[in-house]
Amino acid sequence: MAAPIRVTGARITPVAFVDPPLLNTVGVHQPYALRAIIQLDTDAGLVGLGETYADVVHLQRLEAAADAMVGLDVFALNHIRAAISDRLGGDSTGDGSGLAGMITSASVVDRVFSPLEVACLDVQGHATGRPVCDLLGGAVRDAVPFSAYLFYKWAAHPGGAPDSWGEALDPAGIVAQAKRMIDEYGFTAIKLKGGVFPPDEEMKAIEALREAFPDHPLRLDPNAAWTPQTSVKVAAGLAGILEYLEDPTPDIAGMAEVAAQAPMPLATNMCVVAFDHLKPAIAERAVGVVLSDHHYWGGLQRSRLLAGICDTFGLGLSMHSNSHLGISLAAMVHLAGATPNLSYACDTHWPWKTEDVVKPGVLAIRDGAVAVPTTPGLGVEIDDEALGALHEQYLRCGIRDRDDTGYMRSIDPTYEAISPRW
Amino acid sequence: MAAPIRVTGARITPVAFVDPPLLNTVGVHQPYALRAIIQLDTDAGLVGLGETYADVVHLQRLEAAADAMVGLDVFALNHIRAAISDRLGGDSTGDGSGLAGMITSASVVDRVFSPLEVACLDVQGHATGRPVCDLLGGAVRDAVPFSAYLFYKWAAHPGGAPDSWGEALDPAGIVAQAKRMIDEYGFTAIKLKGGVFPPDEEMKAIEALREAFPDHPLRLDPNAAWTPQTSVKVAAGLAGILEYLEDPTPDIAGMAEVAAQAPMPLATNMCVVAFDHLKPAIAERAVGVVLSDHHYWGGLQRSRLLAGICDTFGLGLSMHSNSHLGISLAAMVHLAGATPNLSYACDTHWPWKTEDVVKPGVLAIRDGAVAVPTTPGLGVEIDDEALGALHEQYLRCGIRDRDDTGYMRSIDPTYEAISPRW
Repeated sequence: MAAPIRVTGARITPVAFVDPPLLNTVGVHQPYALRAIIQLDTDAGLVGLGETYADVVHLQRLEAAADAMVGLDVFALNHIRAAISDRLGGDSTGDGSGLAGMITSASVVDRVFSPLEVACLDVQGHATGRPVCDLLGGAVRDAVPFSAYLFYKWAAHPGGAPDSWGEALDPAGIVAQAKRMIDEYGFTAIKLKGGVFPPDEEMKAIEALREAFPDHPLRLDPNAAWTPQTSVKVAAGLAGILEYLEDPTPDIAGMAEVAAQAPMPLATNMCVVAFDHLKPAIAERAVGVVLSDHHYWGGLQRSRLLAGICDTFGLGLSMHSNSHLGISLAAMVHLAGATPNLSYACDTHWPWKTEDVVKPGVLAIRDGAVAVPTTPGLGVEIDDEALGALHEQYLRCGIRDRDDTGYMRSIDPTYEAISPRW
Repeated sequence: MAAPIRVTGARITPVAFVDPPLLNTVGVHQPYALRAIIQLDTDAGLVGLGETYADVVHLQRLEAAADAMVGLDVFALNHIRAAISDRLGGDSTGDGSGLAGMITSASVVDRVFSPLEVACLDVQGHATGRPVCDLLGGAVRDAVPFSAYLFYKWAAHPGGAPDSWGEALDPAGIVAQAKRMIDEYGFTAIKLKGGVFPPDEEMKAIEALREAFPDHPLRLDPNAAWTPQTSVKVAAGLAGILEYLEDPTPDIAGMAEVAAQAPMPLATNMCVVAFDHLKPAIAERAVGVVLSDHHYWGGLQRSRLLAGICDTFGLGLSMHSNSHLGISLAAMVHLAGATPNLSYACDTHWPWKTEDVVKPGVLAIRDGAVAVPTTPGLGVEIDDEALGALHEQYLRCGIRDRDDTGYMRSIDPTYEAISPRW
């Protein structure tokens, strides 16, 4: 009989890492992206890692949740989730999602529980000598494919030095960005973040990508920048070109209207972001593909539940990404590796970052895919020095909540975040 | 890094145990109930236990499935399920469910995979020093409540000696049976297997139970013996008395018709018995409660998926039982113990059996509930002598497929199994 492995506390460290000026429909990425790094301590001396958003209200909730876990066994995940839910009570004020308003509403409990569950699974893996994927039913693939995640972008943050990627504000810039990214990482699918320019221009970018990469599945994600009418027009124009069209328009009713007429499946990480949204979305046939994200679906086990629901109800399953570091990537890879019906290349912002908190080497993208770690737990280790440096950067940078719109307005005071914009 | 724990083979032993003459709408229980006992061997020397149906075609499939698992790691459950699915191919001829035609159609792969998955989890538990419930998210209750499962019955099998329970063919007999069962086990909920006598008589039995046990939730399960019209009438007559009405009428369309008019929720273990059935059943609002059963829902992990689907789509969740032995009860208790939304007392045939293959003591029913084992794995051990004796009994008894109807016809040649009967 193994003894319980009790949580003794959690060290929650906000960090900031350099982020390029990537454009989206609510503004532009700030010079630094924020994450919270969790080191969950146990009475067995094992430490579990987790990573999540770092907006102020989220950090506060994480501290409360970690406190509610003290004394509980890392295998008692049902109990831990209930304790966190009790502790948070009706606290659902403020978003705290670090998603810059690009999802409608996710479950606060699931969002707070998620990185703590990942940390518990990391401890479980270390305690049992098993990779986390083995705690999720075992890997069904040796490596998880990711997509090249393209962004319209400026050459530099205003007043800053240019990054190595250069400007991309038209089809030629997007194709050049894709070429470099695919040369370097070998991606076999391409996603363009849209909603930045009028739909006609973004359609031209997709057509240019199709010409340059005739065999890569393509996706376009305007983050609900379009009306249903515009969405239907774009969908018709890109028939036979897009693998799926992501969140063309806001909310379940709008998506359902577009889905009924679009020739390709609609995918979402905006109108179905919590278990409560599944029943109405399925009833209204609003989406064909759900982009899962363990950071807001309540961790890896509940993401498996989402996967099973998609399988049961005939929905496709792919994976969403925010700007993230190596702990999140490891968790995504274990989850995707152990999910039979996760049949699309996953999204990742990985190529856009130049800093991390984990020791390098484990998570390289080769041939567009990341090998599922086979060592115990998540298979990644904290680099204490790097963690300290990125925490110092957090303290220095002054950013405390993600605000793409506010940053854009600081550059262009006339800017307005409007959805739908076209 | 823990080494993989590879399956080296499985010993699959059919057993027969004495079963009383319990009546249902398709006939009467035969003098012996059959089960297959699985002892899954691994290269680590750990042995995992499973229990399932023992009809001939099912035994053949289990042998093929066990062979397909050889060399695979007990943590590689996704891989094992895929290997079993591949090996079975399109083999879906014959029922092999041991359910005597009382469910419509379950997934062959899920039914075959189930006991082997349970055995793998038992090995995982022994390898990690954890009870199986800890591999399912951890127990949310210390003990799992069960219901008193009442049957109309004869005093004895024809030509056989009377069992200790005596005859129960009218309301007085059913109330007497309930009194003894509740005195002995402390059950706090009551289920009557109906479909045996005309609905008016069974309604009288339920009313007599209500009078004798004013505070016990009551359920009636005629196994689809009634037309939708009859079902609506019975449901109206038992308004305010039944906690739920189980499978009054056949198939999803019929259940939907009744559900639209019945004052209590309808429960099912007949029209929703596989993941394929959930989408249409939910779309048609056919049922309010799903009676899960890991033996045909593909094991404990997939039963958790079912539980999550019920939670997501607003369905209640309870648990179905066939005649079973201690390994199945242990699996049911770990699963129910770790399922937050399994909020009804579960069904079990436990009080009706007088023999077992596991060493006694662990699974006693006290105050109507079974304590969730806290020792590694399932927490039960094979009694080799008892297993041998019940296997000898299987060889001697001559029964090879469950056939309640055939047995009834051997007693009453005019008997016909008709659904709906009234």
